[in-house]
Amino acid sequence: MAAICAGIARGPSMTGVEQASGHRRPRQEQLEHWRAFLRAHAYVISRLEADLVADDQPSLATYDVLVQLVEAPGRRLRMTELADAVLLSRSGLTRLVDRMVSQGYVRREPSPGDARGVYAVGTDLGVATLRRASRTHLRGIGEHVVDLLSADELEGLGRACRKLVPDPGH
Amino acid sequence: MAAICAGIARGPSMTGVEQASGHRRPRQEQLEHWRAFLRAHAYVISRLEADLVADDQPSLATYDVLVQLVEAPGRRLRMTELADAVLLSRSGLTRLVDRMVSQGYVRREPSPGDARGVYAVGTDLGVATLRRASRTHLRGIGEHVVDLLSADELEGLGRACRKLVPDPGH
Repeated sequence: MAAICAGIARGPSMTGVEQASGHRRPRQEQLEHWRAFLRAHAYVISRLEADLVADDQPSLATYDVLVQLVEAPGRRLRMTELADAVLLSRSGLTRLVDRMVSQGYVRREPSPGDARGVYAVGTDLGVATLRRASRTHLRGIGEHVVDLLSADELEGLGRACRKLVPDPGH
Repeated sequence: MAAICAGIARGPSMTGVEQASGHRRPRQEQLEHWRAFLRAHAYVISRLEADLVADDQPSLATYDVLVQLVEAPGRRLRMTELADAVLLSRSGLTRLVDRMVSQGYVRREPSPGDARGVYAVGTDLGVATLRRASRTHLRGIGEHVVDLLSADELEGLGRACRKLVPDPGH
């Protein structure tokens, strides 16, 4: 656990690598809050992943892809759209979708009128798999996030996080 | 931007895939706060990554590895320790370190008295590279996080996040 506490936002300044410079930079206590955010993300994601493994469910990355497809019209997204939609990792997405095709969770379809376009489409098996995995996953969000915070803390967390992302409507 | 707002925590319930079941699950508004957290992480990380690319600096994953090594005693960690320490992604870590070795940022050293162990060690070039990149990165944390929140919001964010991670001292 100690290892996970070394934060990428800490930067080299705390190790004496970088001396004070003229660059505007966040103060140390501000960086510590951002580090806590990164650490929480890494830790909770690792717990949610472990829960799925323990219940013999697909990986969180697979879950992520399935949710994005199931929520899309016709359960389909172009690969580029899928890469923008996933919340965990774009890297390795092509290989992941290849695996999901071989597992029967996804099929590929050509995009009519777009020679370059290929859709990834969620299958009925993919939807059923997602439904099963969601019991584990939603219980995990309860255990690893919701139950650990007061209502005010959770709401404040959400409010602060929403301020970090531009409003898609504007 | 709209695409990034589809959250893996939403779960299939909102799409009518799963009907209410007997499983304890977070309420919808609680899930929305967790989704905001994931969305904020994905968005801010993508901005920090883009900043490094724009300034011709190493990737955020490379930065992450360099920080963990520089903060470790003797600038060295076993690969397993490094995998536990990085905050962004353990997947692809071996290949990333291979690339960093070829770039001269990292060297490998056998671990004395541990036939299985290999250390990754940060080089002087790695430290210098981290120092340069940190100007971009710390400025980005200012722009994409610190400047967007009030002092209370940032502090509340950090406090809530710290409650999600077990205290390594206990």
